[in-house]
Amino acid sequence: METDTDSGATFGFDVFSRACPSRGTLEHITGRWGSLTLGALYDGTFRFNELRRRVDGVSEKMLSQTLHALERDGLVHRDAQPTNPPRVDYTLTPLGRRVTEQLMTLIRCVEGQMDGVLAARERYDARGGR
Amino acid sequence: METDTDSGATFGFDVFSRACPSRGTLEHITGRWGSLTLGALYDGTFRFNELRRRVDGVSEKMLSQTLHALERDGLVHRDAQPTNPPRVDYTLTPLGRRVTEQLMTLIRCVEGQMDGVLAARERYDARGGR
Repeated sequence: METDTDSGATFGFDVFSRACPSRGTLEHITGRWGSLTLGALYDGTFRFNELRRRVDGVSEKMLSQTLHALERDGLVHRDAQPTNPPRVDYTLTPLGRRVTEQLMTLIRCVEGQMDGVLAARERYDARGGR
Repeated sequence: METDTDSGATFGFDVFSRACPSRGTLEHITGRWGSLTLGALYDGTFRFNELRRRVDGVSEKMLSQTLHALERDGLVHRDAQPTNPPRVDYTLTPLGRRVTEQLMTLIRCVEGQMDGVLAARERYDARGGR
C-alpha cells in the first residue's frame, strides 16, 4: 500500500493501486449485486428471501455469495436465530451503513442524471458510435 | 421505469428495477475499470496511454471498451485531434464530473474504512468463515 500517490489517496489505502485490498472491497461494494444488496439493506433488516425479492434479478447463488463477501468485509451482519427452521436476518453494520450512505448518494446522483445519459446515448448511436 | 418504489427512487429512474437503464449506467460507473477510469480522469485530461498507466492493471482492450461505454453514456468526452499521428484526449464531461465527484466520495470513504474491513476479515476467517 502506498501512502501518497497521484490519485491523492488518504489513510494509506489506494484503490488505484492494484495490490491494495481496498480495490477488492470497493468491488464488493460497487459490484452489480453488492451495490443492490447494500442498497436494499439500507432500508432495514431482511431475511434472505426478502432480500432476494428486493434485489430484482439476483439468483439464490449470487445473493448468497454476495452476502458472504459483504459479511467478511464487516459491512453486513448475519444473525442466525436458533429456531426451527433457523431464521437468518441480515442487517448493515455501522461500518456498512457509513459506506452505503455514500453509495446511495452516488446511486441517486446517477438516477438524477439519466435524462442526460439517455440523450448522450442517442447522439452517440445516431453518429454510428463514432 | 417505475416512479415510486420501496427503494425510494427519484426522478423516475430506479437502479433496483431490473429493466431500468440506470442500472446499466451504474454498472459502467462502478464496474472495476469504469470506476478507476473515471477516478483517473477526475484529475484532468489524459491520452489513452497515460490513462492506461494510471489505471493500474487494465488491458488495452478493457480500457478501450470502458472508455467507449463511458463516452456513449455522456460521461467522458473523446477529443481526436487531426494530427499525424492522431492525438486523442479523454476528459470528463460536466455530467461525468458530477457523477465522479460522488464516486470519489465513496472511494475515499471505503479507503478510510479499510482498517475496520481488514479487522472484520480476520475475525471472519479466524472462525472458519462463519
